[in-house]
Amino acid sequence: MTGFPTLVTVDEALSTLFDKTKIHEPIVENVPLEESLGRICAEDVLSPVNVPSFDRSAVDGYAVKAVDTFGASPTNPVTLSIAGSSHAGMKKDEIPEIGSGQAVEIYTGAAIPVGADAVVMAEYVRKHGDGFVEVIRQVHPFQNVSRVGEDYRVGDVVVEKGVRIRSWHIGALASLNITRVPVYRKLRVGVLSTGGELVEPGEKVEEGQVVNSSKPMLKALVIENGCDAVDLGTVEDELDVVASRIAEGLKKCDMLIVTGGTSIGERDVVPEAVNRVGEPGVVFHGVRIRPAKPTGAGVVDGKPVFMLSGYPVSAMIGFTLFVKPLIEKAYNQRPAIPHKIRARLTRRVPNQSLTRSFVRVKVEKTATGFVVEPLMLTGSGLLSTLTKANGILVVPENVEGYDEGEEVEVELLDHGL
Amino acid sequence: MTGFPTLVTVDEALSTLFDKTKIHEPIVENVPLEESLGRICAEDVLSPVNVPSFDRSAVDGYAVKAVDTFGASPTNPVTLSIAGSSHAGMKKDEIPEIGSGQAVEIYTGAAIPVGADAVVMAEYVRKHGDGFVEVIRQVHPFQNVSRVGEDYRVGDVVVEKGVRIRSWHIGALASLNITRVPVYRKLRVGVLSTGGELVEPGEKVEEGQVVNSSKPMLKALVIENGCDAVDLGTVEDELDVVASRIAEGLKKCDMLIVTGGTSIGERDVVPEAVNRVGEPGVVFHGVRIRPAKPTGAGVVDGKPVFMLSGYPVSAMIGFTLFVKPLIEKAYNQRPAIPHKIRARLTRRVPNQSLTRSFVRVKVEKTATGFVVEPLMLTGSGLLSTLTKANGILVVPENVEGYDEGEEVEVELLDHGL
Repeated sequence: MTGFPTLVTVDEALSTLFDKTKIHEPIVENVPLEESLGRICAEDVLSPVNVPSFDRSAVDGYAVKAVDTFGASPTNPVTLSIAGSSHAGMKKDEIPEIGSGQAVEIYTGAAIPVGADAVVMAEYVRKHGDGFVEVIRQVHPFQNVSRVGEDYRVGDVVVEKGVRIRSWHIGALASLNITRVPVYRKLRVGVLSTGGELVEPGEKVEEGQVVNSSKPMLKALVIENGCDAVDLGTVEDELDVVASRIAEGLKKCDMLIVTGGTSIGERDVVPEAVNRVGEPGVVFHGVRIRPAKPTGAGVVDGKPVFMLSGYPVSAMIGFTLFVKPLIEKAYNQRPAIPHKIRARLTRRVPNQSLTRSFVRVKVEKTATGFVVEPLMLTGSGLLSTLTKANGILVVPENVEGYDEGEEVEVELLDHGL
Repeated sequence: MTGFPTLVTVDEALSTLFDKTKIHEPIVENVPLEESLGRICAEDVLSPVNVPSFDRSAVDGYAVKAVDTFGASPTNPVTLSIAGSSHAGMKKDEIPEIGSGQAVEIYTGAAIPVGADAVVMAEYVRKHGDGFVEVIRQVHPFQNVSRVGEDYRVGDVVVEKGVRIRSWHIGALASLNITRVPVYRKLRVGVLSTGGELVEPGEKVEEGQVVNSSKPMLKALVIENGCDAVDLGTVEDELDVVASRIAEGLKKCDMLIVTGGTSIGERDVVPEAVNRVGEPGVVFHGVRIRPAKPTGAGVVDGKPVFMLSGYPVSAMIGFTLFVKPLIEKAYNQRPAIPHKIRARLTRRVPNQSLTRSFVRVKVEKTATGFVVEPLMLTGSGLLSTLTKANGILVVPENVEGYDEGEEVEVELLDHGL
């Protein structure tokens, strides 16, 4: 193959992928609460109880009939007689009831006595030694009362399906005494490298050889996205070998990533191999983006086989644009809101017509605001942009470029500047 | 203790903490590249080589002397004779040198021949069958050439100390054939719960008992922040017991978190216990914030002992304000740039004078932009705000509140709306 017969846009490529793949929801596993951290919730988890399970006080003070306090002020206090007290943890029959003109001393979290409907905070009450209190501020009904089910009602969704479980979900689930959580079995994503010039990290690099950096990076990306990475090895650009590795990989994985052999002018066995393994085979190859133009994907037995560049920067862009959305679909995840920042460009960024460019940039805080330095240099696939960049500037297909000094919106990669 | 003798501001509390603690940098471990994912880099990792190690072509085309192409255009092409070709992986002595009027066919990544100083892209060259090419666009010296060390020079920092290692760092390190990475041994953070009313998740909850939800949540927070969580158990509010558990915990941990027993009006053995264990003991107790006002911290033998509320929402705020910054300091991390969004309030948010309030909010996208709904209800510590909120609105000490419809800046908690 010496060129890409049909370049497609990112949106066309994605829509083809979603159309041709049969994404199966992974199996559901019930794991102990503490092991659910970082996993993807596989079913809506519902509250088994009302929280609070009874009307309780939100403050320390006196439970009263609100109507008894109407008009109370420091100069016109209302005097109530103390009918007892209500502490957190007291049983129902230990808590006194109140009638008109009465108040019950109450603590945060304690049950509201029968007959009371509001709580006056302690600071608005003057205590007497003789069993009476003076209320100096009125309360309205249910003021300072946490009502039954106000926090969660039976059946309320506590953690939604598709949510990545974080520490605060663990806190809420534990409070409701939910100790097992339904999570998706991790998707298994296979990573296969092709290329006779590749040596594995740690091996001696002879002239003309290149360290296989994309495989460890892609495996890390797979893990960061909540999946298990399956290392399918590194093979030469031999059609038979590549095809049989892909076929083997498909047996044990939910999706595959194959790198290398997708550039113009190189011998390009990966698409041929994908087509040989099964139907429909390659569904797109060549995307109107820069870098990572040689990105492609095939589908075999409904499973996606991504064909990414062997260059790490392009591999990462291909992963983000195509692999990540399919993982999110399988897991029922809502796509994350990108963390964006507006800043001024330190120099011009040109763009090729009809191409969506992904320019890695360095965002820095200066005395006059944030500035964006494009890290383009000669090759857009420079290695150092992986570690020097902290943001990415997307130049859409219909924009010819941005001028020096122009304000642009940059997506931050990690939250450090 | 029936009140907090001295409430301090967040800034005063933090400055006291930084002042009194002796934060030791954790031990450095050298781990295999793939195991370094998510760990904190403990030393600047330097490039051992120049990348590229030689001047190489950034495109497919023809290597030339730039001066030979000056003035070239489609109507005034420059004709050069082909002196051979240069492919990626060829040895130096296999690559032809060029003289004036000559060109060498070259592929991306291949070495620039001796004598050449620029590359004309293939699309600006018309090929003849007779060993000549016509160049139709001029190039300047070093155009389309990736120069020695342009990407990394020997000694350039590839990953900075204090950075959490992500997939892209793995890619860059692998490319440089760096296979072991210095990372910090994980800090050991002990979590101890106090309170006779607590039962562990999964146990039967009798009247007056509460599930211990803060411990699993805090352990998850510790893990999310790159540390090992050490479970120090749950004990009754008995001074001797609490003090001895703290003393034991300090032997095996770098810092401790103790929850419960810090509210006004409750029996408050934790500060007493901290003071008994060692010097200087409690350094602050009671912070001008809402919720989480009863937060405190002590220092023993230079190690911080955080005293957080047993209520999960307050515990989380206490962790974020005080524990997280100390972890970041030990790891030499730069604080993350918060992910903020501007949006309009759906209702008024009041604030108490001199108090910094942390209002959990739900940010939603509407047809007219983002809106912010404060999830305050009766108690600011409601459990459901842990899972319903996707953002936090900080109301500073000098602001009396925000009005309905006012535009405020909200920090997003997780990237989903």
